Amino acid sequence: MSNRPREKQFSFYSIQSVLGRGNYQLSIINYQLLKLYLWKLISLIQNGLSAEPEIAKIVGDDRVIGGVCNLASNKVIFGYIHHIDYGLIRIGRYARNYQFAEITNKMREIYQDFESAGVPVNLTEYLLLERWKKLVWNIPYNSLSVILDARTDEIMGDANTRNLVTEIMQEVLEGAKSCQCQIPDSYIQKMLDHTNKLRPYLTSMKIDYERRRPLEIEGIIGNPLRIASEAGVKLPKIGMLYQQLKFLDARNRQNFSS
Amino acid sequence: MSNRPREKQFSFYSIQSVLGRGNYQLSIINYQLLKLYLWKLISLIQNGLSAEPEIAKIVGDDRVIGGVCNLASNKVIFGYIHHIDYGLIRIGRYARNYQFAEITNKMREIYQDFESAGVPVNLTEYLLLERWKKLVWNIPYNSLSVILDARTDEIMGDANTRNLVTEIMQEVLEGAKSCQCQIPDSYIQKMLDHTNKLRPYLTSMKIDYERRRPLEIEGIIGNPLRIASEAGVKLPKIGMLYQQLKFLDARNRQNFSS
Repeated sequence: MSNRPREKQFSFYSIQSVLGRGNYQLSIINYQLLKLYLWKLISLIQNGLSAEPEIAKIVGDDRVIGGVCNLASNKVIFGYIHHIDYGLIRIGRYARNYQFAEITNKMREIYQDFESAGVPVNLTEYLLLERWKKLVWNIPYNSLSVILDARTDEIMGDANTRNLVTEIMQEVLEGAKSCQCQIPDSYIQKMLDHTNKLRPYLTSMKIDYERRRPLEIEGIIGNPLRIASEAGVKLPKIGMLYQQLKFLDARNRQNFSS
Repeated sequence: MSNRPREKQFSFYSIQSVLGRGNYQLSIINYQLLKLYLWKLISLIQNGLSAEPEIAKIVGDDRVIGGVCNLASNKVIFGYIHHIDYGLIRIGRYARNYQFAEITNKMREIYQDFESAGVPVNLTEYLLLERWKKLVWNIPYNSLSVILDARTDEIMGDANTRNLVTEIMQEVLEGAKSCQCQIPDSYIQKMLDHTNKLRPYLTSMKIDYERRRPLEIEGIIGNPLRIASEAGVKLPKIGMLYQQLKFLDARNRQNFSS
């Protein structure tokens, strides 16, 4: 797959898979609308945890698939995605409580659909693991980029915040473990190395913050915290990120509306 | 004692007691100079922990007293203090490793000196406890005021940051306990109530930050963290405040000099 930016029209399955990409708060409303169209599958290609069970309540467990993107893209208009840089999409079928879910023929059709549109995807039988793996990156960088008003290269360029990122990632691994998702410690170094290679980058949460849009705090931070807490696992640093972000988000939008 | 602002000339003991008020980094230099004057006592009326042993290395244990202020004041010129609002000063003799130190006649003379200048003071035999008690307020509010760019009333007006302040205070109590300083849990509520009554207030660390001066991170946060850590007590939230502040302080002064 070339890294050159491009725009491409997607086929039917792809459209319904990708159009939902957006922030968590909005997606609940979108999917209520989608239900009216009686589409066969709803694909949640987005960050964070616990959107699938919410949507499954509306459309049924067997109609939800989830995915995580490691790519940079923007939605241009309905059916058009502007692909900016690098990447891969991992998708998996949702099963109640994020259980292990075998790859079905329907999943293989979707896979083919993406491939024929020139978009590489991986299929996974364990969506929950993929969600937690993405959180290893998203929780520290999204949070700290807003709290410290910093780009990823600034965060990585300072020994204190670099250590803090590492410690937060270790907490994410503990959270994953509380859900029986084993992520090896080596994955942390992989994410740090990956980030060091990124061009100076504003995270999606930072962009939302600058535009005074609601931050995806619950999906990315609140839900993982609650799930770990229900399993008896405390994540004190992530808990503190949550509190700091809730304060900043509330003030950010209050100032805007006043 | 009236709460009216005033200016007053201090007597000899008082002058040497108060002139050192300033930030931790500068004080080491100041006290090197003071040594040349062969003054009898050096009083460290300032925030934070572990300045006394540093100064005692220079002038000797028996020449150091420490104090904490619960008042608002500014130094105008040498020998003049502008008292702005409310307050009390607590002072105690330093003994090696912050041991319990009985009140001596010299301490009573200093007490009289303050009193006769209209400044109420309390004498304490346990300076270390007073230092930790002051940290219960200083650590959460100084840190969060800089990290979240917030006044005390904003921090107290949001449920998330109010809870965070409380949790940080609980960690300070654990840190104090690691030094055999027992601060009752009820002290936390007292500090929260006190802060709710304050007029909207910029902390001293926030003022330093806005003026791009070095922040008192080591005295107020780094030293308490290290002392607790040496006693085997981890304070994860305070550790995270430290890392966030170190990042912000470095960037703040780097941008200024470039």
